[in-house]
Amino acid sequence: MHFTSGQRLDDGVLEREFTLGEIPGTLWTPGSTAPAPLILMAHNNGLPKAEPRLVARARHTTAYGYAVASIDAAGCGDRPRSAADEQRRADLRRAIQAGEPVDEIFESVVGPLVEKAVPEWQTTLDTLLALPEIAGPVGYSGWTALGIRLAVAEPRITAAGFFAGGYVPRAQREEARQVTIPLLLLLQWDDEGNPRQRALDLFDAFGTKEKTLHANMGGHTGTPWFELEDGCRFYDRHLK
Amino acid sequence: MHFTSGQRLDDGVLEREFTLGEIPGTLWTPGSTAPAPLILMAHNNGLPKAEPRLVARARHTTAYGYAVASIDAAGCGDRPRSAADEQRRADLRRAIQAGEPVDEIFESVVGPLVEKAVPEWQTTLDTLLALPEIAGPVGYSGWTALGIRLAVAEPRITAAGFFAGGYVPRAQREEARQVTIPLLLLLQWDDEGNPRQRALDLFDAFGTKEKTLHANMGGHTGTPWFELEDGCRFYDRHLK
Repeated sequence: MHFTSGQRLDDGVLEREFTLGEIPGTLWTPGSTAPAPLILMAHNNGLPKAEPRLVARARHTTAYGYAVASIDAAGCGDRPRSAADEQRRADLRRAIQAGEPVDEIFESVVGPLVEKAVPEWQTTLDTLLALPEIAGPVGYSGWTALGIRLAVAEPRITAAGFFAGGYVPRAQREEARQVTIPLLLLLQWDDEGNPRQRALDLFDAFGTKEKTLHANMGGHTGTPWFELEDGCRFYDRHLK
Repeated sequence: MHFTSGQRLDDGVLEREFTLGEIPGTLWTPGSTAPAPLILMAHNNGLPKAEPRLVARARHTTAYGYAVASIDAAGCGDRPRSAADEQRRADLRRAIQAGEPVDEIFESVVGPLVEKAVPEWQTTLDTLLALPEIAGPVGYSGWTALGIRLAVAEPRITAAGFFAGGYVPRAQREEARQVTIPLLLLLQWDDEGNPRQRALDLFDAFGTKEKTLHANMGGHTGTPWFELEDGCRFYDRHLK
């Protein structure tokens, strides 16, 4: 792991870019010197980790007393992507916008992305937990499909906040009932890319008894700011 | 308005019983001397205001910096009830437990209860706002059907937290779209007396854009303790 750059923000948060093999990542750590619990903040395949909304979320969560890490998945953000990848993504976006059935395209695009992302996040987790400024326990935040896979495969993750969840690959929909850690599912009621009923069905399917659903009005990017604080308090209940 | 008894609790909260004409009520005020914003805490027809869960909720909310008031509706708690009232309630309980259709019985029991409760709560509100220890703005908490009616009829109420909402009389289901104040709807996912889909439909129907749904696992009385704190933060955003 190599830190390639870093800056100290006004509230004391240290924001550092790193590379881990071919994986580019960002690590945010709080100003205090005590080892902080870690939150893995993953985002869906279309966005770079440098997307301003994601960065704002990470910084706020860190100021709350957590170490937060994000990486770009293969084919996302700063990483090379093939023409075939680009084509499949364009097909998916066009089908969603046209209101066409997207399950098969979605499966072919996102299914493999989840599978490829899991070992990269596990390697990242191994490396981060070896740093003196980071302690367990570990939480997860963001991309629902990857979070389901990690929550089932990775016993070090003890609580997870999922966003959206309307479209989730078949394999993760099926293993949702194996998720037994505390969950907070965040749903935008009129999310243009995530059918509401599917998200409600997924919430129903999770195996854990300690699951909470928060739904707010508006589209995919309209989550109100107070949900960020609610999310931090959810982690406080389970990670501190 | 006559205060008939009172006690100071360990955290400084003052808990006083009062009567207002034939209405028996309880008023909780915080230990601080500054006038506090008011929350009207109403409960469904079957419970007395002295029910321990309701009292615990009121005391906690008061310790958060609010004045909280509760009254027993006509035919509830300490107030006289007729044999016909008792019979209709018993019919309703039996029908719910037997899984029979309950809409008509429900309508005949709860519809008139809502209508009778509204002027009593308005009289209570007038009286409470004249007390020096209470200031506006005013929030509402609890019984969904009454809350819808009050939110539409009473411009002094500026934010409301509703519980359950599976069974709501026809008149209030229809006027839900006239509710334009910020709302927090609390739903128990397996509430034995409140069909989930109806509660979700009601959430969808509210006219306000500032509405949030919190759903948790378990039956009617299984709401997790942290929702009490989430509720206080919701009021903080709108009443302080």
